[in-house]
Amino acid sequence: MTGFLTVVGLGPGDEGFLTPQAGAAIAASEDFFGYVPYLDRLQLAPNQRRHASDNREELSRAEAALALAAGGGKVCVVSGGDPGVFAMAAAICEAMEAGPPEWRAIEFSVVPGVTAMLAVAARVGAPLGHDFCTISLSDNLKPWAVIEARLVAAASAGFVMAFYNPVSRARPHQLDRAFDLLRAHLPETVPVIFGRAAGRRDEAIRTVPLRDAAASMADMATCIIVGSAQTRQIERAGKAALVYSPRFWKET
Amino acid sequence: MTGFLTVVGLGPGDEGFLTPQAGAAIAASEDFFGYVPYLDRLQLAPNQRRHASDNREELSRAEAALALAAGGGKVCVVSGGDPGVFAMAAAICEAMEAGPPEWRAIEFSVVPGVTAMLAVAARVGAPLGHDFCTISLSDNLKPWAVIEARLVAAASAGFVMAFYNPVSRARPHQLDRAFDLLRAHLPETVPVIFGRAAGRRDEAIRTVPLRDAAASMADMATCIIVGSAQTRQIERAGKAALVYSPRFWKET
Repeated sequence: MTGFLTVVGLGPGDEGFLTPQAGAAIAASEDFFGYVPYLDRLQLAPNQRRHASDNREELSRAEAALALAAGGGKVCVVSGGDPGVFAMAAAICEAMEAGPPEWRAIEFSVVPGVTAMLAVAARVGAPLGHDFCTISLSDNLKPWAVIEARLVAAASAGFVMAFYNPVSRARPHQLDRAFDLLRAHLPETVPVIFGRAAGRRDEAIRTVPLRDAAASMADMATCIIVGSAQTRQIERAGKAALVYSPRFWKET
Repeated sequence: MTGFLTVVGLGPGDEGFLTPQAGAAIAASEDFFGYVPYLDRLQLAPNQRRHASDNREELSRAEAALALAAGGGKVCVVSGGDPGVFAMAAAICEAMEAGPPEWRAIEFSVVPGVTAMLAVAARVGAPLGHDFCTISLSDNLKPWAVIEARLVAAASAGFVMAFYNPVSRARPHQLDRAFDLLRAHLPETVPVIFGRAAGRRDEAIRTVPLRDAAASMADMATCIIVGSAQTRQIERAGKAALVYSPRFWKET
């Protein structure tokens, strides 16, 4: 008997984001792999086991999960947000392709979730309402020159941008380099949204013009949305301004 | 007393995608605006009213919803998928900015959902596992030349692409023009995923190489994902191949 491996997206944090489909997948599983804070969000039964690992151990976590499923385990790998966006689904595919043939025979499925940029966008209006790009700013896995080329291409073509993994202790200065680069290609008034823990109790959302955007406003868990030249703000008395990217394109 | 307006994402179709947060927002509302098929997915109580409209009437629907909320209504506007991605949240912001000042005083909130590309990606593996762009192919609201420039920019910079609104009766040939353009900038083996009704009973998901991709494979409700030169496929005996975009960047 072969087991199964399901990769489940928990959404951005609050239980209010967990879909019924994700809840059902968790209930049907026995072994849970993931980064500690994601596993901590699960309420497991006595017959359900945790296999916690650090957030830099994605490939070894994927291999351990595949090996257990190939041996008949009912395995669930959890991701925050959506598992397909800079998260565990790709790591498992990588491990499966490089691994023994029996790993390909596993019943494998992915349960999508609300990814961070959607939750951050929802809190400020509709900044992703027009064409946008989603970019990981981490150069652990790709050269920084590739990231810079993509930032310039996206800004020049009029895409709104969402950044994941914007900064870490190992690379504190790259986000400022990214903002400097963008200031050469976008109006300095373009709104930049720093979204942390969107929808959770400790939520912190802040919008500043590109001219003032700085790496010190972000940490590893921040999702950043940079508007395009078309992105607009609506001032509201006694309320935070709304930020939105119109569906209509206008000559600028 | 002012009312409220909540824009709610229902997810891609199946009830298994509806978040508890979205369910709670629906339960708290009394007047529901939306495109008929989305309203049909709601199970409303006797005191809850439907205001159905066609899918081309987004701005007038937004205005009607805002006017009712400004008069004290408890108003919910529903979108399929996520309301912030080519959907009602931006239309409401547009109407609010152009409308009377009292519309800005409305309690306005957006409840995010699983957007179509995440559900389609989940069904085939992890094609959005690396940097990607999300583009509406409709030229109702922007010039086709802008769309072509964005396709070339995205393909040349190595982004995976997700297309919304890929085709309609009024513009049946543009998607083939888009594929022709991409064939000039990407390997002809790049996988193209046509995803319709992902996660629903009538789901239809199909992956073809870019050389074979054709507009006839899509309709208005299809979400299309076009891989990058880095996107890979894993063949599996007796199962559909998996498609994923590695987290690692490789020189090609």
